[in-house]
Amino acid sequence: MPKIIPYHTLFAFCVSVFEKTGMSLSQAETASRVLLSADLRGVDSHGIARLGGYVRLWMAGRMNPAAEPELIHETPSTAVVDGHQGSGLITAPFAMEVAIHKAEKAGTGWVAVQNSSHFGIAGIHAMMALEKDMIGIAMTNASPLVAPTFSKSRMLGTNPIAMAIPAGKQPAFVADFATTTAANGKLEIMQRLKKPIPEGWVQTESGAASTDPHILKSGGAILPLGSDREHSSHKGFMLGSMVDILCGVLSGANYGKYVPPFPAYVPMPSFMPGKGIGHFLGAMRIDAFRTADEFKMEMDQWITDMRNAEPIDPDQKVIIPGDPERQMEAQRMESGIPIIPGVWNDLHELGEKLGVEKIPD
Amino acid sequence: MPKIIPYHTLFAFCVSVFEKTGMSLSQAETASRVLLSADLRGVDSHGIARLGGYVRLWMAGRMNPAAEPELIHETPSTAVVDGHQGSGLITAPFAMEVAIHKAEKAGTGWVAVQNSSHFGIAGIHAMMALEKDMIGIAMTNASPLVAPTFSKSRMLGTNPIAMAIPAGKQPAFVADFATTTAANGKLEIMQRLKKPIPEGWVQTESGAASTDPHILKSGGAILPLGSDREHSSHKGFMLGSMVDILCGVLSGANYGKYVPPFPAYVPMPSFMPGKGIGHFLGAMRIDAFRTADEFKMEMDQWITDMRNAEPIDPDQKVIIPGDPERQMEAQRMESGIPIIPGVWNDLHELGEKLGVEKIPD
Repeated sequence: MPKIIPYHTLFAFCVSVFEKTGMSLSQAETASRVLLSADLRGVDSHGIARLGGYVRLWMAGRMNPAAEPELIHETPSTAVVDGHQGSGLITAPFAMEVAIHKAEKAGTGWVAVQNSSHFGIAGIHAMMALEKDMIGIAMTNASPLVAPTFSKSRMLGTNPIAMAIPAGKQPAFVADFATTTAANGKLEIMQRLKKPIPEGWVQTESGAASTDPHILKSGGAILPLGSDREHSSHKGFMLGSMVDILCGVLSGANYGKYVPPFPAYVPMPSFMPGKGIGHFLGAMRIDAFRTADEFKMEMDQWITDMRNAEPIDPDQKVIIPGDPERQMEAQRMESGIPIIPGVWNDLHELGEKLGVEKIPD
Repeated sequence: MPKIIPYHTLFAFCVSVFEKTGMSLSQAETASRVLLSADLRGVDSHGIARLGGYVRLWMAGRMNPAAEPELIHETPSTAVVDGHQGSGLITAPFAMEVAIHKAEKAGTGWVAVQNSSHFGIAGIHAMMALEKDMIGIAMTNASPLVAPTFSKSRMLGTNPIAMAIPAGKQPAFVADFATTTAANGKLEIMQRLKKPIPEGWVQTESGAASTDPHILKSGGAILPLGSDREHSSHKGFMLGSMVDILCGVLSGANYGKYVPPFPAYVPMPSFMPGKGIGHFLGAMRIDAFRTADEFKMEMDQWITDMRNAEPIDPDQKVIIPGDPERQMEAQRMESGIPIIPGVWNDLHELGEKLGVEKIPD
C-alpha cells in the first residue's frame, strides 16, 4: 500500500535534499516545485521517484546542481542557454523565462538549451506561458531507448512535446506527451503490476514483437508513436527526430545515441559530440497574432465543441488535453500524494545518507 | 495504364488553366510549381489530380484565385496574412516569404494565415527556408474527417505538419506527414486497388473497427495517429488539435468542424466562426542559435548515424525523412509524371471547358 503524504511535506523534504547537493534555497525551491508538479499531475514516474536518481548523478560528478544557467547567444527572438551541467529542473524554467521575455518584445521567443539534464515533465515548463497570455512550448531529448522504424538500434529518447494554450472560461489546453506509443513510465507501471503489455509498445533486441514490460533490460527498444510501419510508426520516428534535432543539434547538446543516460550506474557514451542533454522552449504572445480576448473566446468554443463531440461510449466523452492532470493536481494538492513502498524506502535511505530529517508518515 | 507526361508539359497546362481563373502569369506559375511539386515528390493525391477541384471551387464562387494575400498584423517575429479567399498555393508561399524575412531580422518568423484554401503539400513550403540556412515549418488545417479518441464525430482534418532542416553534405531532413495513422490519399490508393485497408486506419459511423477504404462515404472517420487508445491515439488527437489551433484559432480562420470542405459540391458549414482555411508557417535562422556550418556538420552526423542504425531486415535500412520524395522527384523530373486515366479524363474535360489546349500525350 502506498503512503499518502501531503504535498507540503514532500516539498520541504525535496528542498532539504536539493540544498544538500549545493543548490541555493531559491534553486532548491524551484527544482522541488518542478519535480513535484509531476507527482501532483499524476505522472508519478517523473516526480519524487526520481529524486534519488538526481542525487546519484550529482554524487557521480555528472551533474552540478548549484550551477547557474547562462545565456550564451541571442537574437531578438532566440537565445541559447548553457546549463553548465546543472539540473534541468532549474535550467528549463530559466530558459522559459528568457523565451517569455523575448516574446514580450519580439512577439515570440525560442530558447535552445545545452548542457542540461532531465527537466521533469515538459508540460510544467510550457504552462509558464499561460499567465502571460502566451502559448508555451517545451521539448527535451533524452537517453536513447527508442528504435527508428526498420531498425533494432536504440537511437532516440522518448522525446516529449508539450504545448500549453490559454483559453477563457475553459481551462487551458495542455498537451504533454512522449513521441512514442508508450512512455517509459507506462512500462514501469506494468512491471509493478506484473502484467504483459500490449503488442506495439516495444520490440525485442532482434526487432521482434514483444509483450514483456522488462524488454529494455535485455536489449529491446520502445517503438515510435504508430507502433509499426502499417500504422505509421515512421511518423512517430519523424516527431522524435524533430525533437532531438531542435533540442540536441540546434542547441549544441548531445543528440541521438549520444545523449547521456539518467541512471548514474550506466556508463557515459564513449564519444559525445555536444554537451549534456538539450531542451527547446518557446513562447508565442497571443496578441502578436490577434487579441487575447478574441482568441480565448474562440478557444472556449473549440474546447466546448470537442467536449460535445458525440462519444462512442456515452460514459466516456472526449478528453481535453490537460483535463485529467488538472483534476489530479486539485485532488492530490487537497488529499496528498501516494508514495509506493519502493520509492518510500529510497527516499528514507536518501535522507539518512544526506542527513535530512526523514519524511513524517 | 497511366500516361507518362513530362513535367514541363503539365506545368504549361496548369499555368494556362490557372490563368483562366483570373490569376496573373506570375501567380499561375507559383501555383503550378507548388501544385506539381506534389506529383514530382510522389504525393499524387495532392497534385494535378486536384486541379479540377480548385477550378470547381472558383466556379462555385468559393475561391478567388486572383486575390492578393495581404499582411494585416505584425510584430518583429510574427505576422498574420489574410488570403482574401485566394488559393493556398499562392497564399502559403507569400506567407512563408514573410516568415523568412522576419527570421532574417528577428531570428525567427511565424506567420498565421486566415482566409486561405488548400495549399498543396506542406513540405514544399517548409523547404523554402532551406536555401536561407533556416529551419522551415508548415502546417495547415483541413476539412473535418478525423474523429477524436472516444468520439464518432469528425472534428479535425488530417492536419499535416512539415519541418525542413538543412544539412551539409547530406541532403536536407524533410518531414511532412498527416497527424493521422493514414492520410486520405492512402485510402484513395486502396479504393483504386479495391483492397481492404488495415484495421486502425478508420472507424465506422458508430465508431467500430473497419477495413473499408470507402468508409468515409458512409459517415465513418479517419483515426488519429496511434489508431486506438491502447496505442495512444490521444497523442495523434493532440497533434492534430495543436495544428488546428495554430492554423485556425490563432489566425482567425475556421477550425475543427467548421473548416470548409474541398469538394465544391459539399455544402459549406451553416456556421463559420472564422475565415476560410488556416495555415501556420515558420522559419528559424540556424545562426540565431549556432553557426550554420557547425549545425550542418552535426546534422550530417545525425543523418549518417540514422542511416547506419542496425536494420531488422538487412534489405530495409532506416529511411531518412525526405529521402524517398527527393529520389522520386529526381526520377519524375527526368522521365515524367504518371497520370492515371481518371485524372487524365478530368484534365481533358477541364481543358475543353476552359478553352485550354489539351495536354499532348
